[in-house]
Amino acid sequence: MNAVLEREKTRMERVAAADPSAFGFSLDHVDSTGARAGVVRTRHGLIHTPVFMPVGTQGTVKAMTPGELVSLGAEIVLANTYHLFLRPGHERIARLGGLHRFMNWDRPILTDSGGYQVYSLGELRRIDDDGVTFQSHLDGGMRHRLTPEIAIRAQEALGSDIMMAFDECPPYPAAPGMVAEACERTTRWAARCKEARTRADAALFGIVQGGTEADLRRDHAEEIVEIGFDGYAIGGLSVGEPKRDLVEMTEVTTAVLPAGRPRYLMGVGTPEDLVEGIARGVDMFDCVMPTRHARNGFLFVRSRERRGRMIITHARYADDPGPIDEACSCETCRHYSRAYLRHIFTAKEILAMRLLTIHNLHVYLSLMREARTAIMEGRYREFLSHFRSQKEDDECLDG
Amino acid sequence: MNAVLEREKTRMERVAAADPSAFGFSLDHVDSTGARAGVVRTRHGLIHTPVFMPVGTQGTVKAMTPGELVSLGAEIVLANTYHLFLRPGHERIARLGGLHRFMNWDRPILTDSGGYQVYSLGELRRIDDDGVTFQSHLDGGMRHRLTPEIAIRAQEALGSDIMMAFDECPPYPAAPGMVAEACERTTRWAARCKEARTRADAALFGIVQGGTEADLRRDHAEEIVEIGFDGYAIGGLSVGEPKRDLVEMTEVTTAVLPAGRPRYLMGVGTPEDLVEGIARGVDMFDCVMPTRHARNGFLFVRSRERRGRMIITHARYADDPGPIDEACSCETCRHYSRAYLRHIFTAKEILAMRLLTIHNLHVYLSLMREARTAIMEGRYREFLSHFRSQKEDDECLDG
Repeated sequence: MNAVLEREKTRMERVAAADPSAFGFSLDHVDSTGARAGVVRTRHGLIHTPVFMPVGTQGTVKAMTPGELVSLGAEIVLANTYHLFLRPGHERIARLGGLHRFMNWDRPILTDSGGYQVYSLGELRRIDDDGVTFQSHLDGGMRHRLTPEIAIRAQEALGSDIMMAFDECPPYPAAPGMVAEACERTTRWAARCKEARTRADAALFGIVQGGTEADLRRDHAEEIVEIGFDGYAIGGLSVGEPKRDLVEMTEVTTAVLPAGRPRYLMGVGTPEDLVEGIARGVDMFDCVMPTRHARNGFLFVRSRERRGRMIITHARYADDPGPIDEACSCETCRHYSRAYLRHIFTAKEILAMRLLTIHNLHVYLSLMREARTAIMEGRYREFLSHFRSQKEDDECLDG
Repeated sequence: MNAVLEREKTRMERVAAADPSAFGFSLDHVDSTGARAGVVRTRHGLIHTPVFMPVGTQGTVKAMTPGELVSLGAEIVLANTYHLFLRPGHERIARLGGLHRFMNWDRPILTDSGGYQVYSLGELRRIDDDGVTFQSHLDGGMRHRLTPEIAIRAQEALGSDIMMAFDECPPYPAAPGMVAEACERTTRWAARCKEARTRADAALFGIVQGGTEADLRRDHAEEIVEIGFDGYAIGGLSVGEPKRDLVEMTEVTTAVLPAGRPRYLMGVGTPEDLVEGIARGVDMFDCVMPTRHARNGFLFVRSRERRGRMIITHARYADDPGPIDEACSCETCRHYSRAYLRHIFTAKEILAMRLLTIHNLHVYLSLMREARTAIMEGRYREFLSHFRSQKEDDECLDG
């Protein structure tokens, strides 16, 4: 570890000793690839990075109890401010003691700002320099408004441990000039978010936009760093751009971000995307993929030599007494056959959603733990090249 | 306990000592009301009666894992032969090691014969003296056939601990003569089921029909007892008849059944029905009500003074920080508020189905445990009269 990181770690330890509830981040090791192993400290406990955050959109990670998430080793979940703002309402959750108590989860929660969902789910949205007005599909077209100040107020009401600045996330591909304009607005809104913040015990992360243009990305990252946040997110990716752009834009952005702050690649991705993101110095990830795919009968598998995907409904599994993955230690693989999982999935049983979700989350969370160990042991380059060399194969575990 | 029961208990203990896997039933106590506390012994373990059996139609109790059922204290589950016969097929389950292994449940399983579902779910059914031909909604109108022999073969293939004879269950109200005819056919089929049985380690229960006519019930019970089974079920009730008939027909039937065999009131019912059934000497119950109602947001509640029902979607619960029932010790009531349950139910989250199912099953299973304790302590009459005196009240826990 270099001297700068050493100093920053010492500084964080001093801060933590003075106020154990203060937000902090320290790096335990940086691999020669740039991959980082660190610890994020929040008032609801520690998060060991690199970390995958299961998505609990409406105050529940779909099909899971908090106890199951703890058993799976999840150290933090993400909740969507947009959804909770609309239903049941952030003020109601505040009256009920905050989101942690509401959903019975006592570990850290990261909340997004609602910005992304306003663009992807809101109807008839009208954007102005102050914020966004939109209609929701939930309440018969009632008008709602989100501004940087309202987004922060909502996240503070929820009792978030890590809040996100309210940003503008342009679509891919975007009309000419739109990405630059979104960057400018996101910068102004980021400053207003920082200004609006009243809770010292909740971290606030800034978001870097810039589409797939390296110059815009770099400039915008500098602007956001200039304002100064507890951590930095890379936004506006995983919205349809080519994989190459995802990797390149991540690399361009992390190069500008300060080493001593956590970096979060929003809405990403596949296991491959996570492993590549880590190699570019990313610490945090979230994605609905493992949970949503599970509910569609689509499984991630990783054996020693191969990795791939399995669709549990395939007829070939009807008589198959083996687990999804012989090498997997999750509850589902320890107790249930492919034949049974196929049967209950086909019969539309709730238990199928549960058992498949457990498996997919286990794959994601254990991949992050293995990556962390590899970084700590200084062999992430080897880990990465082994991962890349594994034959990717749909229905790979048939034989 | 009277001398006959004492002798029967001694006999069962002798049988158990000789063959621990043999099916058996012994009575621990018979209350002055006629309520019985007993123990059913199967090769997958003991069942303490009176018992409620959660329904696992397709090889899973909807929304629950086997581990959760064990935590709730379930000692036996019911599986539906009709559904498993059609999908994934009883022969496939046999090849995969039997239903216990298939569904990861190592406690006893009772299977019905498929008869009831043929009548309630099958299409274009044609009944003859040999059996029933029907079409299923699952496979595009393919024809299937169930006979007493096939029903036993299917249940033996599943590895059932307690099999049911294949019966004819007439609807309510039935055309004149139809009930008597169904009784005759059920008797002939019962004898054929007994004849067809090949596994000594699985019990076989006979089913008493007879609609709501006391004479037919009594006569049919005598016919079925004459053939001789390991236990006796009261069928053809809870199909739309008035409550008074349910209680009266139960009473008429149990009066004829031998004391030393378990008695099972099929498809019954509400908590009230169970408590009244126990007072008529019934030992076993099953019903989809607690699990199905949970998935519809409909909860059973019992406080000390009142009992009733609660619909979790009501607006009055939106800000309610209290549990479903202050007096309840289930996981749901210990950790989640009405406000949260209402929110996730309204948002159609799978977790809502899970948490509400846990509560309703806990209400049923703990009611049976309390009834058993009351019988063992010789105060079931008091238990019954307290239960009857409780004010029944929808949304009873509002205040």
